[in-house]
Amino acid sequence: MLLSTSASIVIALLMGIAGVAFVLWQLKRVFAYDQGNELMREIGTAIQEGASAFLAREYRVIAVFVAIVATVIAVFLQWQTAFCFVSGAIASAGAGYLGMYVAVRANTRTASAASRGLHEGLRVAFGSGAIMGMSVVSFSLIGMTLLFLIFNGDPNQLTYITGFGFGASSIALFARVGGGIFTKAADVGADLVGKIEKGIPEDDPRNPAVIADNVGDNVGDVAGMGADLFESYSGSIIAAATLGAALGNGSTVAYIGLPFLVAAVGVISSLFGIYMVIGKERDESEAANASYYSKSVYYLSQYVAKINENASLEDLLTALRRSVWGASVVVLGLTLLAVLMSGLHFNYWLVIVTGLVAGNAIAYVTEYFTSYTEKPTLAIAEATQTGAATTIIQGLAVGMMSTALPVLITAFAILISIWLGHKADGTLAAGLYAVALAGVGMLSTLGVTLATDAYGPVADNAGGIAEMSHLPEEVRQRTDALDSLGNTTAATGKGFAIGSAVLTALALIAAYVSAAKIESLDILAPTMLPGLLIGAMMPYLFSALTMMAVGKAAHEIVLEVRRQFQEIPGLMEGTGKPDYKTCVGISTESALREMILPGALAVLVPIIVGHVLGKEALAGLLIGTLLSGFLLAVMMANAGGAWDNAKKYIETGEYGGKGSDSHKASVVGDTVGDPFKDTSGPSLNILIKLMTIVSLVFASSFGSGWLSF
Amino acid sequence: MLLSTSASIVIALLMGIAGVAFVLWQLKRVFAYDQGNELMREIGTAIQEGASAFLAREYRVIAVFVAIVATVIAVFLQWQTAFCFVSGAIASAGAGYLGMYVAVRANTRTASAASRGLHEGLRVAFGSGAIMGMSVVSFSLIGMTLLFLIFNGDPNQLTYITGFGFGASSIALFARVGGGIFTKAADVGADLVGKIEKGIPEDDPRNPAVIADNVGDNVGDVAGMGADLFESYSGSIIAAATLGAALGNGSTVAYIGLPFLVAAVGVISSLFGIYMVIGKERDESEAANASYYSKSVYYLSQYVAKINENASLEDLLTALRRSVWGASVVVLGLTLLAVLMSGLHFNYWLVIVTGLVAGNAIAYVTEYFTSYTEKPTLAIAEATQTGAATTIIQGLAVGMMSTALPVLITAFAILISIWLGHKADGTLAAGLYAVALAGVGMLSTLGVTLATDAYGPVADNAGGIAEMSHLPEEVRQRTDALDSLGNTTAATGKGFAIGSAVLTALALIAAYVSAAKIESLDILAPTMLPGLLIGAMMPYLFSALTMMAVGKAAHEIVLEVRRQFQEIPGLMEGTGKPDYKTCVGISTESALREMILPGALAVLVPIIVGHVLGKEALAGLLIGTLLSGFLLAVMMANAGGAWDNAKKYIETGEYGGKGSDSHKASVVGDTVGDPFKDTSGPSLNILIKLMTIVSLVFASSFGSGWLSF
Repeated sequence: MLLSTSASIVIALLMGIAGVAFVLWQLKRVFAYDQGNELMREIGTAIQEGASAFLAREYRVIAVFVAIVATVIAVFLQWQTAFCFVSGAIASAGAGYLGMYVAVRANTRTASAASRGLHEGLRVAFGSGAIMGMSVVSFSLIGMTLLFLIFNGDPNQLTYITGFGFGASSIALFARVGGGIFTKAADVGADLVGKIEKGIPEDDPRNPAVIADNVGDNVGDVAGMGADLFESYSGSIIAAATLGAALGNGSTVAYIGLPFLVAAVGVISSLFGIYMVIGKERDESEAANASYYSKSVYYLSQYVAKINENASLEDLLTALRRSVWGASVVVLGLTLLAVLMSGLHFNYWLVIVTGLVAGNAIAYVTEYFTSYTEKPTLAIAEATQTGAATTIIQGLAVGMMSTALPVLITAFAILISIWLGHKADGTLAAGLYAVALAGVGMLSTLGVTLATDAYGPVADNAGGIAEMSHLPEEVRQRTDALDSLGNTTAATGKGFAIGSAVLTALALIAAYVSAAKIESLDILAPTMLPGLLIGAMMPYLFSALTMMAVGKAAHEIVLEVRRQFQEIPGLMEGTGKPDYKTCVGISTESALREMILPGALAVLVPIIVGHVLGKEALAGLLIGTLLSGFLLAVMMANAGGAWDNAKKYIETGEYGGKGSDSHKASVVGDTVGDPFKDTSGPSLNILIKLMTIVSLVFASSFGSGWLSF
Repeated sequence: MLLSTSASIVIALLMGIAGVAFVLWQLKRVFAYDQGNELMREIGTAIQEGASAFLAREYRVIAVFVAIVATVIAVFLQWQTAFCFVSGAIASAGAGYLGMYVAVRANTRTASAASRGLHEGLRVAFGSGAIMGMSVVSFSLIGMTLLFLIFNGDPNQLTYITGFGFGASSIALFARVGGGIFTKAADVGADLVGKIEKGIPEDDPRNPAVIADNVGDNVGDVAGMGADLFESYSGSIIAAATLGAALGNGSTVAYIGLPFLVAAVGVISSLFGIYMVIGKERDESEAANASYYSKSVYYLSQYVAKINENASLEDLLTALRRSVWGASVVVLGLTLLAVLMSGLHFNYWLVIVTGLVAGNAIAYVTEYFTSYTEKPTLAIAEATQTGAATTIIQGLAVGMMSTALPVLITAFAILISIWLGHKADGTLAAGLYAVALAGVGMLSTLGVTLATDAYGPVADNAGGIAEMSHLPEEVRQRTDALDSLGNTTAATGKGFAIGSAVLTALALIAAYVSAAKIESLDILAPTMLPGLLIGAMMPYLFSALTMMAVGKAAHEIVLEVRRQFQEIPGLMEGTGKPDYKTCVGISTESALREMILPGALAVLVPIIVGHVLGKEALAGLLIGTLLSGFLLAVMMANAGGAWDNAKKYIETGEYGGKGSDSHKASVVGDTVGDPFKDTSGPSLNILIKLMTIVSLVFASSFGSGWLSF
């Protein structure tokens, strides 16, 4: 039996609903954990209030932004696109809100659970991450499928739905760029006064910026990463469906249905992977008499059982890796079924496999370059012996070197995908559809990969709370183990995010070229080269702006923290109460203010270039941004991750350990790496995708350009 | 009367010979100056011997390399191309050798002349720079025109002459990459032990690496910059001639002659500009009774007369700027004549103007971003207050920000040139010819712009010699003023070098596309995207390798300098004699060894991609490298220049001056900037051009690729 497109869409909708059911169940489960002692609850409440204040403020600005853009779209394009735009924004913002809501409540519960054992802690933190992961996937699927059903039969159906991607991109802009500035401004501001001027430890409740810092962790790695991948996930499906619509000579629409179907089976696989981490151990006797189903659950659970109290970082990492790999194996089987049931060529399954393998390969390379068990990061640690300058040089060199393999992997994946698609259907268009499908494949297990990522800040916060509320040393050790693990998964997550951003953007560019009815895109055409050059420059300009923004915002925090230490009596002695809220407010305001210019550039430059230099030059602009942004993003993310871990390596006692000159040099590297890996680098994913989706949405409005000849 | 191509070529040859005559005259003039006292001569001799040792060793390796490549070319292509290749290598190496030979002999003479006055010092140092500048221009012109005449009548004439560009590129690879590693390894190695471990000042004769450091200045900024621009200069003329050959439907060959004619009148203009700096002051009475010619010389000399003993940095800069601007004005007039006499469309003159304006505009922007009288560098100086990390972040942000205008200027220049060419002849091919011609225009005044650049290390060395030989404080002040000026002109020179590299590479890519008989270069073609991606990655890989190379080579110097301090009795007390030669030898060996991998990548990757992915993908590779390399090169060069000058600003006494915490942070910035601005950044010019010329030379050997479908 072959599946019709409508059937595929309905299946995807149902799987989205299943995902929501899981989220609700998991919410109940996480909230059932206790929040620890009074002090922990107090700190937890402060973080929750800070997060709420940030989100309330940010979402108010977003609402205005969305209203304005929606009006522009409705006036200049169609109301349907505007409607989809608003839907996309709401779906992404909703997932982000839920993820943040849970994360800032799971942190105290993780700290508390960690006092009972390592696996208990992991279960709560990971459960919270899973809520974020599954919300992103489900909300995206439900949103897109509902819109698809609403506009069913309308020939411009897919054009409208690009608006959903634009809506998601807009939220990602705020969450990633604004959030990235917030998180690092608070972090750097807190450290500059706290650690350096006042000599108090990190995560000290006396520091007025400490809550802003804790909120920031969640803003960056939960809401930011979530919105980034929500955008890639939606974008890759939209791009695949749009490119698919042009295939098969209209005789079959299975091409449109397939990406939805792949996403749908991805939900099942992700749930399976998540279960491998949070599932309970069962005892042998129970298993012996159990049903076949329960038995298999038992054996699967035994993977989990490896996480015992003496688990090393490697053990924990293995546990998480198994869950991602387990999900990947399941998705491979189910997507084969999906391709066969769609009646499409077997090659398309190979394309999905290519995407999945490429994503994991990039993540693996990222881990290699940023983990302190490997040569590149060790070389940075070694370079700390000759001071801060050599530490920086070595780190930048490692970051640059680390671009080679991800680029080769991506280039190879693109080449194979195009070749497979071309072989299957004999057209270049099928090849580009295959690239989009590879992107969908790469992101099919997003539910679980994002969970491994979004749990990190929860563990990080839990550690801070354990520190601030003076829990026993062993609890802190456990949360530290969870946190270290989170750092590694965060680095690999960033590799995944940029890899998927590239494939998604490329697919969206192909969709743009088709939507703008561009016949030929000769690389030596008059306006193409200027387009490419300006495009390649955009990531540099954007990074410069976001890096400077962190500096300015951090400076404001510094002034406020200094003021509080001066004006609040007994603050240093622990008798006065710091005003956490003002610091959160300042971080929020400055982050929102500083993102205006880079954000406006990302939205306006494509529109300006499209009108002035024409639609061909705009394609050049997008390719230029993609190329240069990909490289710069990987370089920044990996250099930042490697510096961070080189510092952590020295803190284990190598090269003189904490307080040594080597350590000081490594701190310089880590501080430079902070905006690299948490603000500017990840923001480039957004730049690449946002510029592309803006071009796609406005594709029909561009002509040959005022300056064309 | 319209000029035939042959007439244009002969005029260019004659102008080349006139340039050589100037060089000979100037050699006599510089060598007539005295070399100062015994100690100065002793130090001078050590530097000269070091430079000779380096050059002898390097040129031996180059000879082997050239012999091998020439054989490969002769076997797989034609003997004529191999002959041109060898000619190009010899011409470039000859100019580099002469420039170095003079530079390391002009340093003592500059120190000595500076004790008589500021202008005297400038005259010697600038005279030495002018020898380099005019040698580059003349040797290139003579070489190309002679080859043109030798192969006159052969239909493959221009194909052969691309070999000349390849030869020049090969020398540039050694001079810029190998030289860049040498210069920074010696610099960093000398500083790490001397300044930091032993606490002795820079330029202290007890430091065994001090001579290597002094030699390195000349290797980098005289030989390296010279070979880089020799390559651009020759490449832009070759590209223009090659593209011009396809124009005019064979009815006229003026298109081939024009670039040569522009270069020829550029020689006259450069000589004029140089005279404005080195000309002697005349007194009023002499002028009153003089001939009209002498009178005009007198008034011109009055420009120079502004350089008095109390001249500020600004005054000196104005003097040099006037000479460049003066040359530009002359070139504008003469090229108009050249275009008219070629019988070509007036638009081509506008194209030349566009190139010249663009080059100067990029240089101006570079100066703005790297001069400590301007906001960007001052912001870095301010950031030093909060430590090394913020200094690095701000510097990187400034570097990234500084890419925007050069990219816009270049994009605009390309757009205008293509438009003008297109308007003139109605074809896109004419537009691409115009881009190449704009490159020729940008470099037409190279004789004088390179002089303003190559004089810097001479002044720098002179300062070191003044320091080491204990000349009076006022002499050191004068050489310091000349040195500061050299730093500014070096920064603008780098802007010029990258700008011209981009236009030249673009023109060479267009020539490659035509030579490889590529019909269509669709940006979304299957192998194009992988080509673009891999191309964009190359500059990152190349920079990572060159930055790590500096680290490794510097480490070897450190070990040797430590050994000498330990093993040579009385070295620290000034009674023992350091072994300078071993340090020069180690720098040389490690530089030559460490450049093998990056050099091999630059030559082999295009050939591999051309064969595996096909000739279209190779075009993508070249464009990708051009885009990403341009951005990265500008970023690195400007960040490096700005860090350097931020440090110098603090050394004037700001933010606590020398020895303060701000100063220490600024030193970290400067040290990170060293390989940025002197090794990796400039090396990218070579990467971009070398990959392109290799592709052009081997163009006929590439097919559709093994992996094409």
